[in-house]
Amino acid sequence: MYKFVMPEVIFGSGSISQTGECCARLGARHVLVVTDQGIMDAGWTEQVLKSCRVAGLAATLFCGVSVNPTDDEADICTRVYQENGCDAIMAVGGGSAIDIGKAAAVLAANGGHIRDYEGVDRILHPLPPLVMVPTTAGSGSEVSQFSVIVDSSRRKKMTIVSKSLVPDIAVIDPDVLATKSARLTATTGLDVITHAIESFVSVAATPMTDVQAKNALMLASRYLRPSVASKYNREAKEKMAMASLQAGLAFSNAILGAAHAMSHTIGGRYPFLHGDINAVLLPHVMEFNFIACPDKFREMAVLMGEDVTGLSDIAAGEKAIQSVRKLAVDIGAPLTLSEMGFEAEAIAEISEIALTDACMITNPRDISAEEVAVLLTRALS
Amino acid sequence: MYKFVMPEVIFGSGSISQTGECCARLGARHVLVVTDQGIMDAGWTEQVLKSCRVAGLAATLFCGVSVNPTDDEADICTRVYQENGCDAIMAVGGGSAIDIGKAAAVLAANGGHIRDYEGVDRILHPLPPLVMVPTTAGSGSEVSQFSVIVDSSRRKKMTIVSKSLVPDIAVIDPDVLATKSARLTATTGLDVITHAIESFVSVAATPMTDVQAKNALMLASRYLRPSVASKYNREAKEKMAMASLQAGLAFSNAILGAAHAMSHTIGGRYPFLHGDINAVLLPHVMEFNFIACPDKFREMAVLMGEDVTGLSDIAAGEKAIQSVRKLAVDIGAPLTLSEMGFEAEAIAEISEIALTDACMITNPRDISAEEVAVLLTRALS
Repeated sequence: MYKFVMPEVIFGSGSISQTGECCARLGARHVLVVTDQGIMDAGWTEQVLKSCRVAGLAATLFCGVSVNPTDDEADICTRVYQENGCDAIMAVGGGSAIDIGKAAAVLAANGGHIRDYEGVDRILHPLPPLVMVPTTAGSGSEVSQFSVIVDSSRRKKMTIVSKSLVPDIAVIDPDVLATKSARLTATTGLDVITHAIESFVSVAATPMTDVQAKNALMLASRYLRPSVASKYNREAKEKMAMASLQAGLAFSNAILGAAHAMSHTIGGRYPFLHGDINAVLLPHVMEFNFIACPDKFREMAVLMGEDVTGLSDIAAGEKAIQSVRKLAVDIGAPLTLSEMGFEAEAIAEISEIALTDACMITNPRDISAEEVAVLLTRALS
Repeated sequence: MYKFVMPEVIFGSGSISQTGECCARLGARHVLVVTDQGIMDAGWTEQVLKSCRVAGLAATLFCGVSVNPTDDEADICTRVYQENGCDAIMAVGGGSAIDIGKAAAVLAANGGHIRDYEGVDRILHPLPPLVMVPTTAGSGSEVSQFSVIVDSSRRKKMTIVSKSLVPDIAVIDPDVLATKSARLTATTGLDVITHAIESFVSVAATPMTDVQAKNALMLASRYLRPSVASKYNREAKEKMAMASLQAGLAFSNAILGAAHAMSHTIGGRYPFLHGDINAVLLPHVMEFNFIACPDKFREMAVLMGEDVTGLSDIAAGEKAIQSVRKLAVDIGAPLTLSEMGFEAEAIAEISEIALTDACMITNPRDISAEEVAVLLTRALS
């Protein structure tokens, strides 16, 4: 027996102009718009604020979201929400802005510190209306029941999982992807690939998540290269937006695996981009997980366009791993942890903490701290 | 730009025992359980009532649902809801019970006659909590934004479409399919096939509905035969339950086509099973629609397991139509309207009314009353 839950989705070019009306439909009168400086500069925040005005809504802006957002940012965001008498939250940005928007909603409705909600199903009171507008393809947070926030006292990314965190409406406008740099397109695209692959091999995968994960992997492996190549390839942007959405639906309901568990741990300590860490770790985690489900690896190879005719599951599955490596190389993603500034001395501690991340539970192969350390060492250089 | 919306889904063997808790979670205290005599006799209603007791909820039973449910039934159901102080509705049954449950929810919260809500987006006030438990695979109504009710004064099936009609939770337990007769398994299974095919070729189809429609077609064309063959083939029942769910998600968001428009019209006048009418009409509608999208017909042939290597789109697409015909023959479905008792005299009037059904708008090929009449004549014998 399993559950599948998702928000209402509005998808397509120009849909950002519907955001105000979406909030109004949910009963909002005064929207807190959560965003970051890059999105402000690109002009998307202004479009959302305009849509609020057109819908007759008051709006307050919170622009203090960082790359790996923290509990302190969540507290400040909550205060801004409360002091301005807001009654709904709209986040416009990547996973960071959306996760802070969710965290502020939790705190506004439930009080306390965001640390109190770490883990699964600890949110008691219903959240204010949430409309999420992703600007990267991407985190998938606009459809997921996750929020990942750094606990600054422990320097650890906390994973908060609750059905309450599924937004009411996700408004996905592929046009916003045209202002992303190639660098950010590559790193967020590899996050999509990681979501699709980890949720597909997750021990909590279901037929409902499989259709989403498989389609996401097929789309992302086909359209990430051209999307990185050109800001103006609208077809590639639209397909990557769909891949991100579907990968988000898959992992929201099937959870993830060891790559994300390690990535959350590293991201709590280092200012690296989440997608970069995943990109480096994913092939190593795939090699480790391979023996858990060679048949699924074969399927992944086919989805990524590999010809596996006449190959055994083992040989076919290896092609899936090669295909992921090749993609990372082609789009200029980082290939080692050390080039990002990660140091071997941290491995022992990171390995212990990573084991406690909620995403480790659904990894398809049992794993020990020693094995995590081996994977991190392989990923170093 | 398009929308996609679905309820929370709980899927799996034994999930019927969760139904009471689902209602409680939505704030219910006194549930109206809407069902029909066949489901009562099979013992499923008792399981749902027990689950309500375990969850500490009061429950009132309404068992007056017929095969093609009417506005009068909706009125009586609403009165039972109101007179007993109910605050949530749980329907346990096929599309008929679920559609009456939805209609009663509309009337309880919005007043008036169900005719007032015919068409798209005419429901203003939010509905009470709705938990739907489908016992056929099936109507898809447990996840859809549709309710189809006979207007007894006009002898016409009204299609009511609104996002408000999407239930809060769909609880899908494949075990309940084991008490269905082979006859009912066949007719509801062909309804699934019709949902998948009509939503896939619909002019309102989107990438989000396509993944659902394609998977549904693939599953139903593979598992409907073994599901009809044996009550106890659990794998086949589970796959058909999933196919029904996915086809429901597809048509709820992409709408349907000419087969359903005609089928609704005939079902408003004759006591035929909805799936039987669809089964007879579908191949004729496919032949008519073929020129609108031969490439999609090719895809459908592949999904139904046909080998189309080396064939043109035209030749490959024809295999999809043959495949549907063969399936209907293999499972003993009715093949003509006349064997069901439909008479040629009715064709002219039925054709005119069918043109006004909401499902006709999304048919991929433009159609006139004369062309509807030709299709009905072909389907006669």
